[in-house]
Amino acid sequence: MNKEITVNSEKVFEGKIINVRIDTVEVPNKKYAKREIVEHKGAVGIVAMDNDELILVKQYRKAVEDFLYEIPAGKLELNEEPLAAANRELIEETGFCPNKLEKLTEFYTSPGFSNEKIYLYKATELKEVGSNPDEDEFIEIVRIKFDEALNLVKQNKIKDAKTIIAILYVLNV
Amino acid sequence: MNKEITVNSEKVFEGKIINVRIDTVEVPNKKYAKREIVEHKGAVGIVAMDNDELILVKQYRKAVEDFLYEIPAGKLELNEEPLAAANRELIEETGFCPNKLEKLTEFYTSPGFSNEKIYLYKATELKEVGSNPDEDEFIEIVRIKFDEALNLVKQNKIKDAKTIIAILYVLNV
Repeated sequence: MNKEITVNSEKVFEGKIINVRIDTVEVPNKKYAKREIVEHKGAVGIVAMDNDELILVKQYRKAVEDFLYEIPAGKLELNEEPLAAANRELIEETGFCPNKLEKLTEFYTSPGFSNEKIYLYKATELKEVGSNPDEDEFIEIVRIKFDEALNLVKQNKIKDAKTIIAILYVLNV
Repeated sequence: MNKEITVNSEKVFEGKIINVRIDTVEVPNKKYAKREIVEHKGAVGIVAMDNDELILVKQYRKAVEDFLYEIPAGKLELNEEPLAAANRELIEETGFCPNKLEKLTEFYTSPGFSNEKIYLYKATELKEVGSNPDEDEFIEIVRIKFDEALNLVKQNKIKDAKTIIAILYVLNV
């Protein structure tokens, strides 16, 4: 199996969060195909455990027109290391500063059309230092027993992919 | 906490796989914020088990410039029910027709900027009927023991969110 070689690339949208481009690629049968690609800077997600409680955030997600329970998360800033971003985002969104922060895994959220990669961390030994959310972020902190979080996954009340991965990953790996 | 009310919506890209729009929303402090939103028709993913073997597909993903191991998956067609799509995509991509197909869960892949929802199914009692991939899809079928698939998740050799969820979900729920 071969890589798809780009023969043309056209930027069709440049935004603050995402860019979109259309690549024309050579496919193995010597024909050409178009690939619509969303460019994203990447993000971090943090499984923050305060003893047996998991720290979640509840927020309105305009894209899906619903309030979702999610692990604290946020985009990488320019040239920012994922570890530093995880530390920063956890403090900004929840006000908890972790003494211990370890990488769990990383994954692509939707590789069929997007290059977004999420780096997943586990944060423990939390100390409260005060939160500082972005100006247009409105977030409610939810503390929940880990077992109850797993129940929310089973009941499909947690609907966010990174949060499902976070909970199931910590349980198994 | 309140919903974000749309005060303006502008389409900025219309593609075959995705559309992109920018919504201007009212946020709780009576100001306005912009939301860049990728519209996607939704998709299905299938955990196909042939006895103790999981059926994966390996394919080149242009968005991330890598070959990924994934569960069979595909977009919903117009007005198509997820169950019918799961049956269709499994046959098209792998050539296996399931006698039994049950829903596991559903999730948003990246709700911060995309409305893509994936409906996850489990397929068992598989019968080989011959595959029929899309013209520009080049897919290798990989049969793997379920335990080995779990190892690939632990080793971060499986990097696709829906596939990580699929494997960990079947293990736990």
